[in-house]
Amino acid sequence: MGKVVVLLSGGLDSATTLAFVISRGMEAIALSFDYGQRHRRELESGRRVADHFGVKRAVFKMDFSFAGNSSLTSSLDVEDRPLEKIGDDIPATYVPARNSVFLSIGSAYAEALGCDSVAIGANALDYSGYPDCRPEYMNAMEKALNLGTRIGVSGNLSIMVPLQYLTKKEIIRLGLSLGVPFGLTRSCYRDNEKACGRCDSCKLRLRGFMEAGSEDPTAYQDLPGFYSDYLKERKGS
Amino acid sequence: MGKVVVLLSGGLDSATTLAFVISRGMEAIALSFDYGQRHRRELESGRRVADHFGVKRAVFKMDFSFAGNSSLTSSLDVEDRPLEKIGDDIPATYVPARNSVFLSIGSAYAEALGCDSVAIGANALDYSGYPDCRPEYMNAMEKALNLGTRIGVSGNLSIMVPLQYLTKKEIIRLGLSLGVPFGLTRSCYRDNEKACGRCDSCKLRLRGFMEAGSEDPTAYQDLPGFYSDYLKERKGS
Repeated sequence: MGKVVVLLSGGLDSATTLAFVISRGMEAIALSFDYGQRHRRELESGRRVADHFGVKRAVFKMDFSFAGNSSLTSSLDVEDRPLEKIGDDIPATYVPARNSVFLSIGSAYAEALGCDSVAIGANALDYSGYPDCRPEYMNAMEKALNLGTRIGVSGNLSIMVPLQYLTKKEIIRLGLSLGVPFGLTRSCYRDNEKACGRCDSCKLRLRGFMEAGSEDPTAYQDLPGFYSDYLKERKGS
Repeated sequence: MGKVVVLLSGGLDSATTLAFVISRGMEAIALSFDYGQRHRRELESGRRVADHFGVKRAVFKMDFSFAGNSSLTSSLDVEDRPLEKIGDDIPATYVPARNSVFLSIGSAYAEALGCDSVAIGANALDYSGYPDCRPEYMNAMEKALNLGTRIGVSGNLSIMVPLQYLTKKEIIRLGLSLGVPFGLTRSCYRDNEKACGRCDSCKLRLRGFMEAGSEDPTAYQDLPGFYSDYLKERKGS
């Protein structure tokens, strides 16, 4: 069966990862990070998603405001990139070493709570281009965490990355099949009441819903042209 | 030349690492962690050591009280082991994934501050038996952090472990030659005003000073027999 710490930001990917872990009959404990992120609303989404699935959730607090060169932890503007440019290079929303910090703290929780796995929603096909979402990184980090922890030395600590090789379309289809309440999730890098519809994260999400032949229940400030056209077609057909 | 984030607990090893980095002509920035450790006095030692060397020091706060199975982050007793047992297995003072968390956050600081290295005082000969002090762990973590950071992808992030293969005797001799103010450092796992002289860390330190043919300037509550005998011999000769 197994007992798993699931890193839960409150976004689409982490909510699907949580649903996936539960669907496999494993016991999930959610862990969210309050690191001073600009898009704080994701924390409330994380709480709602955990409540929806009836899992316990811990929130680990820390202050990443030292990372003044990231637009998620400083007052730097979030860039709006055309969809075809997303993933080409590391954007300003990159937070230094974030997944290393999250996976390390997740492993510490796993050890403390008697879990044998840490699950993370990282994926690297329709993504922002963060180096710490790539499979080669995940494999190296799993090795390091196994060498550096009691559980790794005496047994095995598994870093589960179930979405690693999935497209956003496939993640959304998987989530729909697992009953993920996508309306409770929050992907936007901005913290306005409605999702902006312009940042990398909104665009990748909306294209994913379009490609999955579904509709995003999220309320948006602006809809990108490709998605408005798609909605019109759906209504027309 | 290089610019280095030096993880500075306030103990003997991290103070020697800081002095080593400075002696190589590199620019050092100290980083201490306030994670709710029982032995909080080390934070004051870290401040004094950084001041001694005239380096800037950041303190990163987080709460590790979830780690209830570690005697450094809970009210569990610190064990007193005979010197010959130290290093045989992982003791209760082990804090889950601590060096992974520290190195990950250290790398985030390095990226944010334009440094190319993170230095840590870990060593694995006269040590408490923590898996995350071993060279195989350090090498794996360096690889993971290089794959998961912007600086690693575009250049190289170096995890410096200058004391990795040194005995405590050799570390103390190195520190003495570099002018480390050992009287300002604090190694004890307990938080009494005077160092206890009974925990792993005190015993390894005192044996190191004895083997180095020097005297520890630290004030102790109790001195282990081997060190009292050594002091008597020194006075006699």
